[in-house]
Amino acid sequence: MNFASDNTAAIAPEILKALASANDGFALGYGSDAHTKTVERLFAEAFERDVAVYLVATGTAANAIALAHVSPPWGAVLCHREAHVITDECGAPEFFGGGLRLFGLPGEACKIAPATLQKALDDELWGGPHHLSPSTLSLTQATEAGTIYRPDEIAALAAHAHARGMAVHMDGARFANALVRLGGTPAEMTWKSGIDVLSLGITKAGAMAAEAIVFFDPARAAGMAERRKRGGHLVSKHRFLAAQFAAFFAKDYWRTLARHANSLADRLAIGLAAGGRKPVWPVEANIVFVILPKDRVAKLKDAGASFYVRRSLSLPAGTEIGADDALLRLVTSFSTTEQEVDRFLALACR
Amino acid sequence: MNFASDNTAAIAPEILKALASANDGFALGYGSDAHTKTVERLFAEAFERDVAVYLVATGTAANAIALAHVSPPWGAVLCHREAHVITDECGAPEFFGGGLRLFGLPGEACKIAPATLQKALDDELWGGPHHLSPSTLSLTQATEAGTIYRPDEIAALAAHAHARGMAVHMDGARFANALVRLGGTPAEMTWKSGIDVLSLGITKAGAMAAEAIVFFDPARAAGMAERRKRGGHLVSKHRFLAAQFAAFFAKDYWRTLARHANSLADRLAIGLAAGGRKPVWPVEANIVFVILPKDRVAKLKDAGASFYVRRSLSLPAGTEIGADDALLRLVTSFSTTEQEVDRFLALACR
Amino acid sequence: MNFASDNTAAIAPEILKALASANDGFALGYGSDAHTKTVERLFAEAFERDVAVYLVATGTAANAIALAHVSPPWGAVLCHREAHVITDECGAPEFFGGGLRLFGLPGEACKIAPATLQKALDDELWGGPHHLSPSTLSLTQATEAGTIYRPDEIAALAAHAHARGMAVHMDGARFANALVRLGGTPAEMTWKSGIDVLSLGITKAGAMAAEAIVFFDPARAAGMAERRKRGGHLVSKHRFLAAQFAAFFAKDYWRTLARHANSLADRLAIGLAAGGRKPVWPVEANIVFVILPKDRVAKLKDAGASFYVRRSLSLPAGTEIGADDALLRLVTSFSTTEQEVDRFLALACR
Amino acid sequence: MNFASDNTAAIAPEILKALASANDGFALGYGSDAHTKTVERLFAEAFERDVAVYLVATGTAANAIALAHVSPPWGAVLCHREAHVITDECGAPEFFGGGLRLFGLPGEACKIAPATLQKALDDELWGGPHHLSPSTLSLTQATEAGTIYRPDEIAALAAHAHARGMAVHMDGARFANALVRLGGTPAEMTWKSGIDVLSLGITKAGAMAAEAIVFFDPARAAGMAERRKRGGHLVSKHRFLAAQFAAFFAKDYWRTLARHANSLADRLAIGLAAGGRKPVWPVEANIVFVILPKDRVAKLKDAGASFYVRRSLSLPAGTEIGADDALLRLVTSFSTTEQEVDRFLALACR
Repeated sequence: MNFASDNTAAIAPEILKALASANDGFALGYGSDAHTKTVERLFAEAFERDVAVYLVATGTAANAIALAHVSPPWGAVLCHREAHVITDECGAPEFFGGGLRLFGLPGEACKIAPATLQKALDDELWGGPHHLSPSTLSLTQATEAGTIYRPDEIAALAAHAHARGMAVHMDGARFANALVRLGGTPAEMTWKSGIDVLSLGITKAGAMAAEAIVFFDPARAAGMAERRKRGGHLVSKHRFLAAQFAAFFAKDYWRTLARHANSLADRLAIGLAAGGRKPVWPVEANIVFVILPKDRVAKLKDAGASFYVRRSLSLPAGTEIGADDALLRLVTSFSTTEQEVDRFLALACR
Repeated sequence: MNFASDNTAAIAPEILKALASANDGFALGYGSDAHTKTVERLFAEAFERDVAVYLVATGTAANAIALAHVSPPWGAVLCHREAHVITDECGAPEFFGGGLRLFGLPGEACKIAPATLQKALDDELWGGPHHLSPSTLSLTQATEAGTIYRPDEIAALAAHAHARGMAVHMDGARFANALVRLGGTPAEMTWKSGIDVLSLGITKAGAMAAEAIVFFDPARAAGMAERRKRGGHLVSKHRFLAAQFAAFFAKDYWRTLARHANSLADRLAIGLAAGGRKPVWPVEANIVFVILPKDRVAKLKDAGASFYVRRSLSLPAGTEIGADDALLRLVTSFSTTEQEVDRFLALACR
Repeated sequence: MNFASDNTAAIAPEILKALASANDGFALGYGSDAHTKTVERLFAEAFERDVAVYLVATGTAANAIALAHVSPPWGAVLCHREAHVITDECGAPEFFGGGLRLFGLPGEACKIAPATLQKALDDELWGGPHHLSPSTLSLTQATEAGTIYRPDEIAALAAHAHARGMAVHMDGARFANALVRLGGTPAEMTWKSGIDVLSLGITKAGAMAAEAIVFFDPARAAGMAERRKRGGHLVSKHRFLAAQFAAFFAKDYWRTLARHANSLADRLAIGLAAGGRKPVWPVEANIVFVILPKDRVAKLKDAGASFYVRRSLSLPAGTEIGADDALLRLVTSFSTTEQEVDRFLALACR
Repeated sequence: MNFASDNTAAIAPEILKALASANDGFALGYGSDAHTKTVERLFAEAFERDVAVYLVATGTAANAIALAHVSPPWGAVLCHREAHVITDECGAPEFFGGGLRLFGLPGEACKIAPATLQKALDDELWGGPHHLSPSTLSLTQATEAGTIYRPDEIAALAAHAHARGMAVHMDGARFANALVRLGGTPAEMTWKSGIDVLSLGITKAGAMAAEAIVFFDPARAAGMAERRKRGGHLVSKHRFLAAQFAAFFAKDYWRTLARHANSLADRLAIGLAAGGRKPVWPVEANIVFVILPKDRVAKLKDAGASFYVRRSLSLPAGTEIGADDALLRLVTSFSTTEQEVDRFLALACR
């Protein structure tokens, strides 16, 4: 009953196999190897256009380097106030961005509404020399609440941002989960909707440690090689980063992995609702938030269930967490089993 | 005939196996897993004292984070002028160190002589508010020339540095190669000789991507967890970093791997000398520098040999590289074969 | 009728005279002059203890350097959400602080209530490695609303902060205005109430360009000389910075100047209230906020009055600014005249 | 006998007068005042073209902000190894430049020869992702040795730099001294010879504290307002910065002041040579370097003479400083008197 995070899962079998397969003889370091070239082609295919791709080992690195690259130090990065970049990266975007500022916006279910963005752009003090300038909009897909931005929602947000001369970044730590739920194409979810730069994370999806920064306009990536290196994020035996991506894209493995995780989240959601514990937000990816009585939480812990108790400022209107209740975040992964879910449900709802 | 770099080698078999073994079920992320706890203990055993250890995925990260942690932004890090930290990390130490300065010292065979260090401390303009303050001495072990600092040499350098209130850092990207050559203990090569913080790299030695920052005085590491995270260097599925180290230390595997690499370098050196091509510097680790006529270099390239042609400012007095000659850097690894070496020798010396 | 800002005023006569008097022969640069030594003594007298003082030319520099010195890069500086440091310094604290984060707290009249501080410390996600650590509390005295923290309020806030291991900073851009209103001593308003470091600004009070960073524990200032220099803030002809402070402290000139500014603000406030335009907040320093109909604002502008129209998130409960109204910020200075005030009142209230 | 530095001089009379004249009534802050507008026009006239001008209070700020604006963090700023930016600013360029690197070049008399620049560009390891990229050439005019770059020398250096895509910066802390010696125009000494950005310092020339960053292509200055503000270098009562420049340019006052300083340096040089103490380098600005016996130095100190004893790595071939000798730096200013010089000569040469 491990629902603490999708990064507590192991490596998906095909990706582990790919690491072993790549372990064959010599290969030039730092991305001058054949695996990396292949992966660059796979990205172009997946996104239906030429892209500039930079692989790194952590999601925080991908986000921070991407944001730093499209924002000046006097820029403000607007994001949801519960976004990973502002809550969980210990200020990495500020560090890489020379002291830029993250600016948190409210929004139910951890989604930013276009009107909220527009209001912030209209009402806050912006503009030099005294005030920061809004430089980048960062959207998390799927969100920290497990919800999803639809392409038209992304397009509406991006339109506001672009009208103000801002760049649009997507933190795609759970991009595949959103992709398979939406059923569209990676292109539709990104550049066709106005995304300029994507952090595509595959670690949570089943890789060991592999993330990509993808620029949809390669010209905009000038200097990225230096920025990555100087951040200590140019891996020397680069083929092993690349191999993870190659396996991820091969035979639609990413969709297979993400569908599994999502379907187990659905099973959890349906079971909870059936047991009178309807999840707090619609379950659209592989994350379920549910309110349970604290004594039930204790029982689950006793039975070995692993998960985090959270707070949120983005609850639906009217939803409150009573003194005897707790808000649980449950995350499924490619390796979650039906048995785990059912056992959890039995304990949570009985 | 691959002598380009030890990072062009694959993953050593026991380390790859360890990755597969670690791929078992769930494990908490970010270092809260059992493998990481084990590795912390292994470090304490290997170095015969309590240490604070921080694992990262690249050597540049290990060096830059370590240097930033022991130097203020107005500090100068004194290192050899051909040290990796000053020549090959695209300014990572300056970036992590808030704009500290690297100060390159001359020295034959890429080693700093104590007198050279003392002269720099005496003669240069140091001290606030106008000048930088010497904050850290960084030594590479083995050096970029493939030479080695003996414990007494380290102790003499560290004494000068400590007398000035400086910290002493060791870039141990090829620490194991030096260790097996010297035959002493890791403790003797480090804290017993005055090293305060060590970047211990095992990627070049046979790992996939694993480096450790080791503080011999754990109290000095306060804030390191934050510094690593905010640099994007806290790997989420941390067990796979730890597993590489565990395999490296197990059954003296690190000595086995390093001895192999060193012995192949010796074979290369002996063969070259026998063929009238004596290496430029004593071959003490797994790197051989040799001067060859350019037509011979071309023949080697044609035959598929891979290596880098370098310049150096640290040649022995009297050694010059003629217009028709080139200085070759040849690096052996745990996977270099006698056949490769012998084939190279045949082409280089015949 | 100039109420735009106290920094639109000229130099107070005694301070200008002091500049001319200091213009006598040679003096060593960078603070090694007699004027600077004198001023250091004057600070010790004014604050009744040994202090470490660093003079700079701008308030933004004083704040940013002070905050950077007491916060690590992964620290959060808690301040009121309308504080100058977060709204008007274009990210200077983040820049000097290596990417630290400013964290804005709500509070009526631009004051932070102790309970609000405590709630933020209790409820927000704090602590490494993933989250920032609360490192510094920054209070503005007088506040951006023209209100004042009493010593006991400061002490209560500082107690919360110190209990959490945080430093306490005071942005004293209008310190003298608060001082004369409170009637206490500089010591009571600062270190006796728990302030660790003070930015004491005298530019708005009547100087040309002079601000001081004051550490009440001199040991805590180690490295400040370097930090100031490397920020470009060590003025070479330093005697002219010092001379401004000397004149400011001499014969209680600072109290004289501040009393004048405050009394004109009082006159404005009383007049407005008498005319049915009661200021929004109690007028405690030299700033008056008042709501006027937009047509009245236009008339004032036409008549040559100068002031800023502002928004605020810190209005008293129940106070709203109608669509036809505007919130005016009126700032008086040492050189504001009764005639200006009366003319303004006549236009504003008639 | 004050020859310690031109920044130990007071404020030149016309500039002090200008400060008093500017002290008249209200003026908007932060550069929105009439004095600043006037000065912007004066710059355009002095340099015969539209320029973008940013005033600050210190030379270190001017240099560091200018260099940071034209160099990426992974850029190398090539300068003479005894240039002020690398020796005397405590790392300010690195701090403002996000960790860029200063790269010192040798050169007699503190001047960089075009061949030296070209050799560094050819021979050093440059280029991403591993190495830094040469981004900016910084020339000091007059140099730290008191020598001067001729327009054709500047043009030759700039040509090398521009061919490599680098920007060219001039640290003009003693620009006026060079200008009056060369007899040309400010335009010839700067943009007509290939300078892209100039730090024009007038503090050493006679101002209180005033420096300008001048971009000859105003488009290149985008973002400078924010960079200055965020560095804490936007002075609020900006008219007093501007007034210093206005007085400096008025009635050719800058040439008058600089000619005086230079002519006193000449008097010193001629007298020393006549006394058998020929200055080490040609005296082209207001700085004289001379070697004197240590007992003579002691006598001068005893008599109250003030100056610095220096070392230099840029001495003419064959010049050595014996164990009983010292190298003196003597700096004249607008306020140095013939009496001082003659008294010094009498003591130095007798």
